[in-house]
Amino acid sequence: MSVKVNEKFIKSFVSEDEISAIIPEVKNALLSVKKRDGLGADFLGWVDLPEAYDKEEFARIKVAADKIIKSCDIFVVIGIGGSYLGARAAIEFVKSPIYNNLKKDTPDIYFAGNNISTTALSELLSICEGKDICVNVISKSGTTTEPAVAFRVFKKLLVDKYGEAGARDRIFVTTDRARGTLKEFSDKAGYETFVVPDDVGGRFSVLTAVGLLPIACAGIDIDSMMAGAAKAKADFDTEDFGANQAMRYAAFRNIFERKGKTTEILVGYEPYMLMLNEWWKQLYGESEGKDKKGIFPTSVIFSTDLHSLGQYIQDGKRNIFETVVNVKNPGSKFVIPMDDANVDGLNFISGKELDYVNKTAMLATLVAHCDGGVPNIVLEVEDRSAHSFGYIVYFFELACAISGYVLGVNPFNQPGVEAYKKNMFALLGKPGFEDMKRELEKRIENM
Amino acid sequence: MSVKVNEKFIKSFVSEDEISAIIPEVKNALLSVKKRDGLGADFLGWVDLPEAYDKEEFARIKVAADKIIKSCDIFVVIGIGGSYLGARAAIEFVKSPIYNNLKKDTPDIYFAGNNISTTALSELLSICEGKDICVNVISKSGTTTEPAVAFRVFKKLLVDKYGEAGARDRIFVTTDRARGTLKEFSDKAGYETFVVPDDVGGRFSVLTAVGLLPIACAGIDIDSMMAGAAKAKADFDTEDFGANQAMRYAAFRNIFERKGKTTEILVGYEPYMLMLNEWWKQLYGESEGKDKKGIFPTSVIFSTDLHSLGQYIQDGKRNIFETVVNVKNPGSKFVIPMDDANVDGLNFISGKELDYVNKTAMLATLVAHCDGGVPNIVLEVEDRSAHSFGYIVYFFELACAISGYVLGVNPFNQPGVEAYKKNMFALLGKPGFEDMKRELEKRIENM
Repeated sequence: MSVKVNEKFIKSFVSEDEISAIIPEVKNALLSVKKRDGLGADFLGWVDLPEAYDKEEFARIKVAADKIIKSCDIFVVIGIGGSYLGARAAIEFVKSPIYNNLKKDTPDIYFAGNNISTTALSELLSICEGKDICVNVISKSGTTTEPAVAFRVFKKLLVDKYGEAGARDRIFVTTDRARGTLKEFSDKAGYETFVVPDDVGGRFSVLTAVGLLPIACAGIDIDSMMAGAAKAKADFDTEDFGANQAMRYAAFRNIFERKGKTTEILVGYEPYMLMLNEWWKQLYGESEGKDKKGIFPTSVIFSTDLHSLGQYIQDGKRNIFETVVNVKNPGSKFVIPMDDANVDGLNFISGKELDYVNKTAMLATLVAHCDGGVPNIVLEVEDRSAHSFGYIVYFFELACAISGYVLGVNPFNQPGVEAYKKNMFALLGKPGFEDMKRELEKRIENM
Repeated sequence: MSVKVNEKFIKSFVSEDEISAIIPEVKNALLSVKKRDGLGADFLGWVDLPEAYDKEEFARIKVAADKIIKSCDIFVVIGIGGSYLGARAAIEFVKSPIYNNLKKDTPDIYFAGNNISTTALSELLSICEGKDICVNVISKSGTTTEPAVAFRVFKKLLVDKYGEAGARDRIFVTTDRARGTLKEFSDKAGYETFVVPDDVGGRFSVLTAVGLLPIACAGIDIDSMMAGAAKAKADFDTEDFGANQAMRYAAFRNIFERKGKTTEILVGYEPYMLMLNEWWKQLYGESEGKDKKGIFPTSVIFSTDLHSLGQYIQDGKRNIFETVVNVKNPGSKFVIPMDDANVDGLNFISGKELDYVNKTAMLATLVAHCDGGVPNIVLEVEDRSAHSFGYIVYFFELACAISGYVLGVNPFNQPGVEAYKKNMFALLGKPGFEDMKRELEKRIENM
């Protein structure tokens, strides 16, 4: 089993009665997911994805990845939100957070179109100078501002550099199966296209072409990743609370939320967890943060952030709990060298493995934070393999759906994301928004 | 003036009475800082630093930086917490968040010793293979585990590669002025040393040698940075609430805290703000998060995170407020190209500058989040120059001190950081911790 909820460091914060009381709720939530009779049930495509994915497309993704790996120095992945975080999380978790700086036989991968920064775009263009480039644009509609602007720029760059025919071989489009201007244009231009399914929301899409193509281009075994997700699906089919780790995680976090612990800190002890944390923040924040409800999701990397947020967590306001992802096997070994001068007084750990110190720091912190009044859910994960990544993704997705139903929200919509977009289009003078522009400008003037 | 608090997007959340009531509090807090009669007054060395810094050492820092720039491909900076975040924040803010990937005439800079990760250390060593290296270890005591382990490794690497004499030219030590084993050892070994002052806490130390040496090695003008800080010091000398931006920021955030808005989200609209956000999180979290009090500090980069945490901020639990850092001048220009096909329907913004769209997204989001019930303090900053960075640092430091006094805590200690360290030393079997080890292990077994 690849994710196990260790409850040692929450026991003193949760009573047996609280657990008994919430079990029927998480069970009903799981049943709603399975029977597809809950809120937002049209977006449950991710549930069966580990088995019911499009095998023909999956094979095409592998062929495209091989082609991309052979034909470019830099692979530019254009997307925002769910079309960005999953792939980047996988590449950092399985490969490295400094993947681009390491020697390797796969291309550098840069993510573009996830901000509106002049300098970020200019810098990326300067890095691309003189290099061979391939591009994957990921956008269901093709009209989201950030990726659309980046795609304009890189499409032009590729056409200028390789001609229309050459660019055709280097542009890969992940978009709607049939509708939308990007799909239409891509078919006309002859770009190879992959599908953002209709029934899988962006934040649940990492196991679709959205995530799979960039992940495969980093040399990660996507078969193994899907197998990991499939294993999770099988493991979490049970309605037995004691056995179903997704139910357990959902239950405990909702228990804490109801006790006023309204901020959840996802904790990793490895820098390669940073973007997995970010992916998780979107998954939970966007699924739960609505109707003035939801646990606020935030994250840290320890021991780094023990030296910044550690003080607060130890002794600040007690409205927080932590969820610690413990990756048991570090994958490599490093022995702390002896220092004859013993300047730092650390010779008592020389000869020990660095990861032993890391794990000890984790245990020490778990006890300290418990003592400080902060419950710590620990998620035990085997390793940082592609298989484990797939498993973790499915675990978090299912636990999120259960959690959202228990909280009483539709975990699959995100109506609040539109608010700033509408204002932006109006203020930018998009045709059709003229009245709204006038009203808004007047309001802002009077604010 | 380089930082101005724009209160347009908080007006509807704060009454005149609330402001009148808090003015005497922030004024008294400022006076306590100036008169040095408040809690933790032994650690107010940062207050006069922009003028009263050690000019001789400052000159040595510039000479050392020149030497480092000329003699290495990779500059490894070893430190954690306050000995890490400030320098990295400056380099990313003034230079680039992907500084190491850009063409430049200064060395790559890698930060080590800020975690206990086997893979992070192994990867950095693989990057260093065949390169010329210089090292700056930053540790007041020299005994903090994370930097100490990294320094053991890199000292050995340099001695093996360049011999004792060669290593001597490439190792720079920032530590206590007189005491401590690292200072003693460095003097004996002949390493050049710089000072971590006694009266400046780690999180306030970026304008000392702690920050200045790495920052200078990235080619940043540290004279200009200090001048920016000095300008801020002069600007914030006034006790006039309307004029003193540090007082104003401190006042508004405390008003929100008292109204139950207990999480503050620092918002940047540029990826180069990411590490400034992290530096700020340490500054505020470690200064305020004690005695079960304090605003929980977290951060986002928009528009990136509008597509992940945007939903929560728009419509989740209303215990949050935002502080937006608006860097007015982006420093470079990028014009959105025309696309004849207009696939994305964005031709209404082609020909416009990308930064205009970014600023419009910001304005659109400010209105949307206000409408959603989230107050937004806006900090207007001129540009991303070294001068502005120095100014911002001083602004945040002074506002933090004022804020902590208003909250009723000692903003300059961090007793909670020791809790996990003591547990860790005991569990690792450090000599002298034998009893604690036995007790802890028994407690953990029974948890």
